[in-house]
Amino acid sequence: MMVVELIERKRDGGRITPAEWRELMARYAAGEVPDYQLSALTMAVFFRGMDDEETVALTAAMLESGKRLDLDHLAVPRVDKHSTGGVGDKVSIPLAPMIAACGVAVPMMSGRGLGHTGGTLDKLESIPGFNTRLTLDAAAKQVERIGCALIGQTAEIAPADRRLYALRDATATVEAIPLIAASIMSKKLAEGLTGLVLDVKSGAGAFIPSLDRAITLARTMIALGQRYGCETVTLITDMDQPLGVACGNAIEVLESIEVLKGGGPADLREVTFALGAEMLLVAKVESTRAAARARLERSITSGAALAKFQEIVVAQGGPAGFVDAPERHLAAAPVRAVFEAPHGGVVQRVEPRIIGRAITALGGGRTKVEDTIDASVGFLVHARPGAPVRAGDPLVTILARDEAGVAQAREALTRAISIGDAPAARRPLVSHRVTAGGLEELAVGGAS
Amino acid sequence: MMVVELIERKRDGGRITPAEWRELMARYAAGEVPDYQLSALTMAVFFRGMDDEETVALTAAMLESGKRLDLDHLAVPRVDKHSTGGVGDKVSIPLAPMIAACGVAVPMMSGRGLGHTGGTLDKLESIPGFNTRLTLDAAAKQVERIGCALIGQTAEIAPADRRLYALRDATATVEAIPLIAASIMSKKLAEGLTGLVLDVKSGAGAFIPSLDRAITLARTMIALGQRYGCETVTLITDMDQPLGVACGNAIEVLESIEVLKGGGPADLREVTFALGAEMLLVAKVESTRAAARARLERSITSGAALAKFQEIVVAQGGPAGFVDAPERHLAAAPVRAVFEAPHGGVVQRVEPRIIGRAITALGGGRTKVEDTIDASVGFLVHARPGAPVRAGDPLVTILARDEAGVAQAREALTRAISIGDAPAARRPLVSHRVTAGGLEELAVGGAS
Repeated sequence: MMVVELIERKRDGGRITPAEWRELMARYAAGEVPDYQLSALTMAVFFRGMDDEETVALTAAMLESGKRLDLDHLAVPRVDKHSTGGVGDKVSIPLAPMIAACGVAVPMMSGRGLGHTGGTLDKLESIPGFNTRLTLDAAAKQVERIGCALIGQTAEIAPADRRLYALRDATATVEAIPLIAASIMSKKLAEGLTGLVLDVKSGAGAFIPSLDRAITLARTMIALGQRYGCETVTLITDMDQPLGVACGNAIEVLESIEVLKGGGPADLREVTFALGAEMLLVAKVESTRAAARARLERSITSGAALAKFQEIVVAQGGPAGFVDAPERHLAAAPVRAVFEAPHGGVVQRVEPRIIGRAITALGGGRTKVEDTIDASVGFLVHARPGAPVRAGDPLVTILARDEAGVAQAREALTRAISIGDAPAARRPLVSHRVTAGGLEELAVGGAS
Repeated sequence: MMVVELIERKRDGGRITPAEWRELMARYAAGEVPDYQLSALTMAVFFRGMDDEETVALTAAMLESGKRLDLDHLAVPRVDKHSTGGVGDKVSIPLAPMIAACGVAVPMMSGRGLGHTGGTLDKLESIPGFNTRLTLDAAAKQVERIGCALIGQTAEIAPADRRLYALRDATATVEAIPLIAASIMSKKLAEGLTGLVLDVKSGAGAFIPSLDRAITLARTMIALGQRYGCETVTLITDMDQPLGVACGNAIEVLESIEVLKGGGPADLREVTFALGAEMLLVAKVESTRAAARARLERSITSGAALAKFQEIVVAQGGPAGFVDAPERHLAAAPVRAVFEAPHGGVVQRVEPRIIGRAITALGGGRTKVEDTIDASVGFLVHARPGAPVRAGDPLVTILARDEAGVAQAREALTRAISIGDAPAARRPLVSHRVTAGGLEELAVGGAS
């Protein structure tokens, strides 16, 4: 196989056969194909795309470059949720124990924050002692024992994807839809799932802002899931503003526990329950959405979901009694300040990308993979598009390391939040449901 | 400067500023920017192109990454010719001494064969002892002394281009027109020329087969030349069939000497004289094409051009008396065989790419840069599109190392040469002249 001929063919709009993709990725994972050829190829894919057969072949090649979580011996269904990421999206943290409390195994593999988006692993690691770096074997044992493990992508899982993702990140080829789909699904399919629910964000703060492209990505991933006998459903949810109030790391864990205790911001609760209901449906433990939501409600009111989270925390090295007084265990920011409305009117926009980057500037996010994170900093974003405000009303609580951080945050918030006279348009919180059967418009909940 | 942001901007159709190109190429030449980022960027350039300012900046950046031939102290004009390459194109070999014999300095830097095209350096090196690896300093001294040097691109010239060209070759981004233009011109402008004539080939055997793209390339290079005060003129010439009869290495030197002695195939003579006349015009030693052609004729009939070639051969380490009996000094192929017309009719096509690749298969060309070349092998292609032939007429004389080579060559020639009943269309040998002033249709000579 001459790699340069594959690049040339893709560049000119041709296709690479499944056998060629398999050989290429095996050789790439073995270090026999240089990064400079793969980066040229992925840029050609950015412009030319890949057909379904190619995307399946690339996914299979990356999946087969590593190991899988072997949970076939479990009697219970195994379901995970994956989100394309956003600002304030802490849904995984309350959702995983809720689902596990409903008798469905949740082998959940999450990522770290990068750019303007936060990461579930970083948030969980704000809990003292919490270890997300379990081996596949330890994760499988924990799932078997308590029904859930919250881990990161290990070196054993899809190593070809790890290498390719880092390369794409350095060469501006992250945004190609078939490559995103293959990357996500090669990892998710390694979890040995019976079902998968995807949360594809759309809106200004989403990785892929355009709704059309979000739906294309959803369809591509669903087709990949079906190929592997893993029923896959996608909800398209709003990321035109931060999700919930807390945006940071430790404060997102606090807000997650509020949800597990029956509280929390309405938008966060709605997205969590919507995704959770889909998970119980693909797990086939419920057959109607109403029944699934009722079961999720019971996992909260009974205290089972909260207890399950505590069980996970202890299993992964965190403190006993954590959920009873989480604020006692979590780092608190030294400085708190309030960002007030400069004038009265109606909140027009709360730009999630600016908020996300401002968290990184405070020390709570990453611009490079190797950056470390300050779990204590962030924002409590009270402002909601469409809400009337008076001059001096608190819009955001700033949690910072020092006054310089506060000043920097104020500057960013001035750009992020606009107040005007017009009524702000309300976007649906959950706009579409995509399955192998087709696209359904939902328009659940106004995002405000 | 974040390189990934430059890639992203180019990918999305934006432009990279001249200052950014300069910094990028300086850092790339210094080894501070990895190949995998440059290959993704060049693939994005392949799809998005570059505007004139960007092409100028990239050319300047690559030019400035190395040294230049300093010939400003010479009283005479300094002119070179560059061809985009083809099969049987040995024009440089008779042309350089013809021009030098007309009192114009020719500091000529040529390339090696790769893929289906031959290279002037390889042909010259079939002359025993002929050294093309002069330092810039030695080349400048030789030009000063005898008016001509025939050399290769040294490590001192445009090192950023050398590195980028090798990368493009391995990542299928060679064909991007602004990158081709910048690569050629960064080297040519390093020769310290006062004028430059470009031979851009079009047709099936050309590097860029399409006429439109050939003209675009010509215009891009002409604009670059003007920027540097180097008057640049382009002829678009035919490469829909091999040029001349001899296709190989040693046999192309023999045919070149035939031209210098007043003979040689008509098409080769015509292209040589057409390019030569343009060189005398940009050198401003003649002011009309008729006068320029007459002067070139005199350089042949007087024996001055032949004597100049002999002078160059000796200056660069070749044998005394070479031009008197060149066949005595050149390697001869052990096996000669005739490929005959399988049936009567009219020659329809002589596919230059198949001929070129068949030469490589005989051992006379390269598939990789590090391959060595057998100078003795090749083809004497007697067949010309449009010519009537009878069954058994000799179409090609095969020069090979052994009978296996002959058999392989016959198979290729069967594919390369088609004979049918239709009269074959005659393409003009020199179809267009492109200058800073515009495009002129010439239609000189039918290519048969």
